[in-house]
Amino acid sequence: MTTPEPGSYGARSIELHRQVQGKLSIQSRVPLNSKDDLSLAYTPGVGYVSSAVAENPDLAYELTGRGRTVAVVSDGSAVLGLGNLGPLGAMPVMEGKCVLFKELGGIDAIPIVLDTQDTDEIVMIVRNLAPSFGGINLEDISAPRCFEVERRLQDIGIPVFHDDQHGTAVVVLAAMVNALKVVGKPIGGSKIVISGAGAAGIACCEMLIEAGADNIVMVDTKGALYDGRADLHPAKQAIAKKTNREGISGSIHDALVGADVFIGVSAPDLIDRNDVRSMGPDAIVLAMANPVPEITPDEAKAGGAAVVGTGRSDFPNQVNNVLAFPGIFKGALGARAPRITSKMSVAAAMALATLVDAPHAGEILPSALDTTVAGHVAEAVAAEWAASGG
Amino acid sequence: MTTPEPGSYGARSIELHRQVQGKLSIQSRVPLNSKDDLSLAYTPGVGYVSSAVAENPDLAYELTGRGRTVAVVSDGSAVLGLGNLGPLGAMPVMEGKCVLFKELGGIDAIPIVLDTQDTDEIVMIVRNLAPSFGGINLEDISAPRCFEVERRLQDIGIPVFHDDQHGTAVVVLAAMVNALKVVGKPIGGSKIVISGAGAAGIACCEMLIEAGADNIVMVDTKGALYDGRADLHPAKQAIAKKTNREGISGSIHDALVGADVFIGVSAPDLIDRNDVRSMGPDAIVLAMANPVPEITPDEAKAGGAAVVGTGRSDFPNQVNNVLAFPGIFKGALGARAPRITSKMSVAAAMALATLVDAPHAGEILPSALDTTVAGHVAEAVAAEWAASGG
Repeated sequence: MTTPEPGSYGARSIELHRQVQGKLSIQSRVPLNSKDDLSLAYTPGVGYVSSAVAENPDLAYELTGRGRTVAVVSDGSAVLGLGNLGPLGAMPVMEGKCVLFKELGGIDAIPIVLDTQDTDEIVMIVRNLAPSFGGINLEDISAPRCFEVERRLQDIGIPVFHDDQHGTAVVVLAAMVNALKVVGKPIGGSKIVISGAGAAGIACCEMLIEAGADNIVMVDTKGALYDGRADLHPAKQAIAKKTNREGISGSIHDALVGADVFIGVSAPDLIDRNDVRSMGPDAIVLAMANPVPEITPDEAKAGGAAVVGTGRSDFPNQVNNVLAFPGIFKGALGARAPRITSKMSVAAAMALATLVDAPHAGEILPSALDTTVAGHVAEAVAAEWAASGG
Repeated sequence: MTTPEPGSYGARSIELHRQVQGKLSIQSRVPLNSKDDLSLAYTPGVGYVSSAVAENPDLAYELTGRGRTVAVVSDGSAVLGLGNLGPLGAMPVMEGKCVLFKELGGIDAIPIVLDTQDTDEIVMIVRNLAPSFGGINLEDISAPRCFEVERRLQDIGIPVFHDDQHGTAVVVLAAMVNALKVVGKPIGGSKIVISGAGAAGIACCEMLIEAGADNIVMVDTKGALYDGRADLHPAKQAIAKKTNREGISGSIHDALVGADVFIGVSAPDLIDRNDVRSMGPDAIVLAMANPVPEITPDEAKAGGAAVVGTGRSDFPNQVNNVLAFPGIFKGALGARAPRITSKMSVAAAMALATLVDAPHAGEILPSALDTTVAGHVAEAVAAEWAASGG
């Protein structure tokens, strides 16, 4: 990456990070001013607490921080849209994620970056870390390994949630619900093109299908996914069977012709105003590549888009999973749900959509900084678990 | 463990833990009040920070919290003196340790308890967690596995320090230096009986030998360790060869006859006033079993002990590694030392001893709550690394 220009977000962010040297710190919640304090927080008093928890493991939720602590775990293999930066490169993003967990959801989150990208090793490590936390937020693990990692960790007794998949899908579904309301189109029948068939793209596709979408075309770097394409790994094969009913085989530009919705979870500067012009009337463009979107809002509007969103906080309509994960974990931890079901994710999306009273082109989602969002999402998630999961 | 009596440390500690539900919380060090804040702490700005760190891994110490963050890792196999309580049972102690790291050393420490007690798995997990932290404090892992775990992790590029071994040994050496000064005996020639041949006992023995002790008898649950005893694992065999020059083979009571020093890192209520009476004149008793010592200070004094210390914060002369680990890690992190050498540990002990101006029976060590201690220890540790390690 080239050196960012002075005054740019990159330069200012590096400067901020240099000032704080880490965006998180640990705070003690107990006093340590006297020998008595020490005898209660540590020995001899703590020995009795440890014995009590060892005898009754449920007490971990009452006598330790387990019920409000989440690990944000990454192997650094797919950091934002920047690729395989490795564990050290992933850490600034994980720290940022933990800041958002705390500030927006009141969750104490701890960044854990792993020096392995081996599926078996990641699964084994996270499984053995589980007693330290009340939940595991997997982050920036590349596809297709992320599917297997998440699947194999569903039985560890605490929620394991790959945010790049389901967090993104939740917010995209919420954005779609309101954007379609703005342009007056139903989800069934709308042609939706998803650019990017990685973790986020596949999860978005599955959640949109669950919500009634029936005409989705997925596109990866080699073009549209269709049933029978020779180079697809099993996760892509499975999704190809459920999508692309017209059997399109061309590029993203071909796929977009006549489309109602573009969902980008792929690469910077992938399409331009001419692509948007080729879409159907009142096109919806959600360009979420990070940090540089598939198309800028100005360019998309120049092509005639009716509703435009990106993943960035400095543009309007930020379609960012920050709206989802703090509330989803808050709800799951509060309900002590041992996992997060797809119904809980859909409930989160619907709760999110209803938080915008009167959606319009400039506002299809609540603000990413609205600290009341997580509470509402948490309530819907916990209620869904109570109703059908528990 | 029986229910603690109302008003006891146990009952009050459980009450305190129930109030706070975890003794730690995460704090953000960056503001999150505006979209601009979000763009710097998270996307798009953080992408540039991640790229910079990925290109130059040393920047992890400048742009993330690595340089002041330590993991406190346990498998729960030897929690205090309470035995194998497992990971959930270990957590209250690990949280307490992290409180001490922060309050006394300014180090951000994160408790990690593992759901495995397999040596290979622990080594593999900690190795892969390394990029997340600037150092690893191993804690409450039972002997002899702890020796192998620590040895196999010395090459991971950041300090890995088993506090139960070396932290305890550092403070015991400091206490011995000053206690021997009080009674006017040299370390060479003094008969020292160490009760407990686990992690702490063996490490204490090795550090005392390094400091000039030449007449040590180690005792485990089956009696004195002597060269050739049939049931010893390799670590005990090795230490048996270096100790017990008289070939004593009896119990702790036999071993103590005529001894100058009792060091207990073993089990509660192991000896009584008659054992102390059988020791030499001006006996030194350091009874550090936790939470209940081998002998209470009152009982030891009734037996005629000249200097008595325990591991507890509610008795005088607390010989507790809380005096060592915050400063040792602070010094090692500050020097960016990739490991903690035995010379760095000895330097820490000597620094600690000199912090007591005029040692007397009632004061052989600084107060465990003295927040200036860690800075002095850190200075000595960093200076030693600069002088001979780096």
